[in-house]
Amino acid sequence: MRKVVKFGGSSLADSKQFEKVGNIISADESRLYVVPSAPGKRFSKDTKVTDMLIKAYEITVEGGDLGEQLKKIKARYDEIIDGLGLEMTLDDEFATIKENLEKNPYLDYASSRGEYLNGKVLANYLGFEFIDPYETIFFNEEGQLNDYKTNKVLKKRLEEVEHAVIPGFYGQGKDGRVKTFSRGGSDVTGSIVAAAAGVDVYENWTDVSGFLVADPRIVEDPETISTITYRELRELSYMGASVLHEEAIFPVRSKGIPINIRNTNRPQDEGTWIVESTAKKPAYTITGVAGKKGFCSITITQALMNSQIGFGRRVLQAFEESDISFEHMPSGIDTLSVVVHEDEFLLKEQEVMARLHRMTEPDSIEIESDLALIAVVGRGMKSQSGTAARLFAALANANVNIRMIDQGSSELNIIVGVANNDFEAAIRAIYENFVARV
Amino acid sequence: MRKVVKFGGSSLADSKQFEKVGNIISADESRLYVVPSAPGKRFSKDTKVTDMLIKAYEITVEGGDLGEQLKKIKARYDEIIDGLGLEMTLDDEFATIKENLEKNPYLDYASSRGEYLNGKVLANYLGFEFIDPYETIFFNEEGQLNDYKTNKVLKKRLEEVEHAVIPGFYGQGKDGRVKTFSRGGSDVTGSIVAAAAGVDVYENWTDVSGFLVADPRIVEDPETISTITYRELRELSYMGASVLHEEAIFPVRSKGIPINIRNTNRPQDEGTWIVESTAKKPAYTITGVAGKKGFCSITITQALMNSQIGFGRRVLQAFEESDISFEHMPSGIDTLSVVVHEDEFLLKEQEVMARLHRMTEPDSIEIESDLALIAVVGRGMKSQSGTAARLFAALANANVNIRMIDQGSSELNIIVGVANNDFEAAIRAIYENFVARV
Repeated sequence: MRKVVKFGGSSLADSKQFEKVGNIISADESRLYVVPSAPGKRFSKDTKVTDMLIKAYEITVEGGDLGEQLKKIKARYDEIIDGLGLEMTLDDEFATIKENLEKNPYLDYASSRGEYLNGKVLANYLGFEFIDPYETIFFNEEGQLNDYKTNKVLKKRLEEVEHAVIPGFYGQGKDGRVKTFSRGGSDVTGSIVAAAAGVDVYENWTDVSGFLVADPRIVEDPETISTITYRELRELSYMGASVLHEEAIFPVRSKGIPINIRNTNRPQDEGTWIVESTAKKPAYTITGVAGKKGFCSITITQALMNSQIGFGRRVLQAFEESDISFEHMPSGIDTLSVVVHEDEFLLKEQEVMARLHRMTEPDSIEIESDLALIAVVGRGMKSQSGTAARLFAALANANVNIRMIDQGSSELNIIVGVANNDFEAAIRAIYENFVARV
Repeated sequence: MRKVVKFGGSSLADSKQFEKVGNIISADESRLYVVPSAPGKRFSKDTKVTDMLIKAYEITVEGGDLGEQLKKIKARYDEIIDGLGLEMTLDDEFATIKENLEKNPYLDYASSRGEYLNGKVLANYLGFEFIDPYETIFFNEEGQLNDYKTNKVLKKRLEEVEHAVIPGFYGQGKDGRVKTFSRGGSDVTGSIVAAAAGVDVYENWTDVSGFLVADPRIVEDPETISTITYRELRELSYMGASVLHEEAIFPVRSKGIPINIRNTNRPQDEGTWIVESTAKKPAYTITGVAGKKGFCSITITQALMNSQIGFGRRVLQAFEESDISFEHMPSGIDTLSVVVHEDEFLLKEQEVMARLHRMTEPDSIEIESDLALIAVVGRGMKSQSGTAARLFAALANANVNIRMIDQGSSELNIIVGVANNDFEAAIRAIYENFVARV
C-alpha cells in the first residue's frame, strides 16, 4: 500500500497542528508523499498566510515597504519552527522572496510562497526530501496543466525518493514564471502527485471528517457520507456541497485511485471514501442532498410548439447569444421553461427577452424568480423503487410547493425546484425522511 | 343565444341518426347553423362514405368503371332520403360528380363529396338554406386557411340567412379547385363557421358524451370531464386523447367561443365544455390523464457539462439537423436526456449518434428504448399541494418504476416516463387514485 497525503491550511496552521500531522504520517508508513497547503487560520478572525502574502504583493505594487509585512509572515513560520524545536531558519528564503518581490513582483509568485515555505518546514520536520513543484509541475500556453510533461517529470523525480514533501498550489508556467492553480489548488497538486506516483490512495486531510449528507448550516449534525462515487460527488458539489477542489478529481479518477477525505483533528474517524464505483450498499437510499438559491425560470408558451422542429434549440440559442448558461429546461406540452441563475439573467433580462421574442415568436413569456434548486443524489435511488413517492411525500408533509421537477434517465438524481423561502424546510424534510428517521 | 352545431359522421350515418339530429335541432331554436360530416359507419364493419368516395377516385385513376361504386354510394343517401320521406333526389348531383371524376379526377374533390351531398340532404330535411363552402371557405397558396378572406365572405353570407347547412371538411383552394382539410376536418369547418357567425356556443355533436378523464381502452368506464380549458385539452390531445380535430380549436378560441361536446345518441347528457378559462372548481385535482408509448431517451453524459455555454443547444441542434423533433429534455448535473419518438429516431439513429459525438464530444451516450410518456393534466393541480406526492405514491404502489419526470413552472401538468410495459398499470393507478377513489 502506497499513499499520497495532502494536508489543508487549517491542518498546518501552527506547531500544534504540525504535530498532529507528524503523528498521522508516522502512524502509517505507507504515507510516502506529502502535499501541504500554506498555514491557514488558527482561529476564526485569523488571517491565512496566503492572504498575508497577497497583501505583501499589494504593498509592493503600491510602492510601499515590504519589511513589516514579511516580518509578520515570518513570525507565523517561526512559531511553527520554534514550537516543533526544529533546527532551521527561513532567513535565506525570506531574503530571496523580498528581493524577488521588489525586483519583479507578480501575484502568482507572491501567493505561492506560503506553500513553498510550509513545504520547507514540513520536509525538515518529517525528515523528507523537498521537491519544488516549480521544477516538476508544468502549465501549457493556455494556462492549463500540461498533463504529459508534468506526469513524465514528476514521476521520474518521485521514483528517485522514498519520501518527499511537495508543496501544493503552484507549478511553472509556460513563460518560466511561477503559476498557481485557483484558490484551494493544493487539492489539485495532491491529485497530480498521487496520479504521477501511481499510489493506491490519495488521502486528503482537512478539518472535517468527510462529506456530509446535508449542509450543516441547515441540518443539525448531519451524518457523514462513508462512500461516495465521483459522479455523486460531482453532482453534490455542483449544487454547492463543496469540500474538495473540483479539478482535483480528474487526475486520480483517470488512474482509478480513490480519495479518502480525513480529519486531521479526528484521525480515528474513517472519513469519506470517494471511489469510481462500488458494490458497497449505500447506508441510505440517498447519498446526499444539496442545493442552491437564486435561480429563476423563464417559461415560454406557444401552441403547437412540439410540431416546430427547432423551437427548443432556438430558445437555448437566445440564451447562449446573451452568454447565459442554463441549468435545466423542463417542458410540458406547449410550454418550455428555462432555469437560469437569477443574477446572471437580471443583468441581461431585456436583451434576452427581446431575443426570445424575435427568435421564437411565443404566445407568452413568464418569468418566475426566487427559485431554489435541490439535487437529491444517490446511486441507491435506481434500485429503490418509490424514491420519488417518498421524496414528494416528505416535501408535501413539510408544506413545500413543488415548482419544478427534472429527472432524466440517469436515475442518479432528482432535481426539484422550490421557492427560495422553502429551501431550508425542503432540505430538512428530505434529510429527515431519508436519513434521520431510518 | 346563438349556436353553431356540427354533427360527426356517425351522427348522420343513416335515416335513424338523421332523425335524432332533426330532433336536436328543433329542440333548441338557437341552433342556427349546422355543419355536417359525411355519413359514417352504421356498424363496426361498415365503410364510411368518404372512404367509398376515395375508392371511386382510385377506380377512376386506374381507368376502371365508376358506375358500380357510385351506385353503392348513392344507395347510402337514398336510404336516408327514403327513410326520412324527403321529396328530393341526388340524381343531378351524382351525374355531375361522375362527369367531373371522369374528366378531371382529383382526390380532394372526390373525398369532399360526402359532406357536400350530406349537406344537401340535411338542408332539405331541416328546411335550411344550403351554403357551399366552396364559395365561402378559402385556402391560401400555402394550402392553409385564408382566415381573412374566409371570415369576410362567410360572415357576409351567414348574415343573409337565419338558418343554414354548411358542409364540413372542404373549401376552395387558391387554384380554384376543391380543397379539403385533413381527415376529421369538419370539426375545423364548424369552428370557422362559429367564429364567422360570432355565435355564443359551438356545439360539436359526436357519439360520445364528451371527453373522458382517461382512455376507456385502459380504464373501465372512466368519468366524463365536465369542463376543460383549451390549454388542458390541447395537452391531453397531444398525448393521444383525441376527439376533436386539433386545428378546430383555434378559430373559436380566438373569438372566446366555448365548445360543447355532445352525444347525438344521448342528448340528455351535458357533455364536455371546452372553455378559455373557468372559475368553476374542477371535480378532481386532475382533469385528465393521457399518454403514448414508443419513445426512447438518449442520455448524454459529460463532466462539467453545465460550465459549457451552448452544450444543450448543440445537442438539440444535432437532432434538428436530422429533422427529429424532441419531446422533452430532462437534465441532471452532468447528464442530459433527450426524449424522442422511437420510430422517428431509429430511422436515423447512426446519423444522429455520429452528429452528437461530433458536435458535443460527450463522455458517453446511452440509448434507452421502450419508453412511454404519461401526461397528468389539471388546472386544479396548481392550487392543490401534494399532487406530486400523491401521483408518485400511486405509481409506487402499482410497482411502476419512474424513468423520467418533467414538470416546468406551468404547474398545469406533470410528465412521467415509464417503461412501455408499465404504461397501462400506471394510467390505471393514476385514475384510481385521483378519480375513482375520491
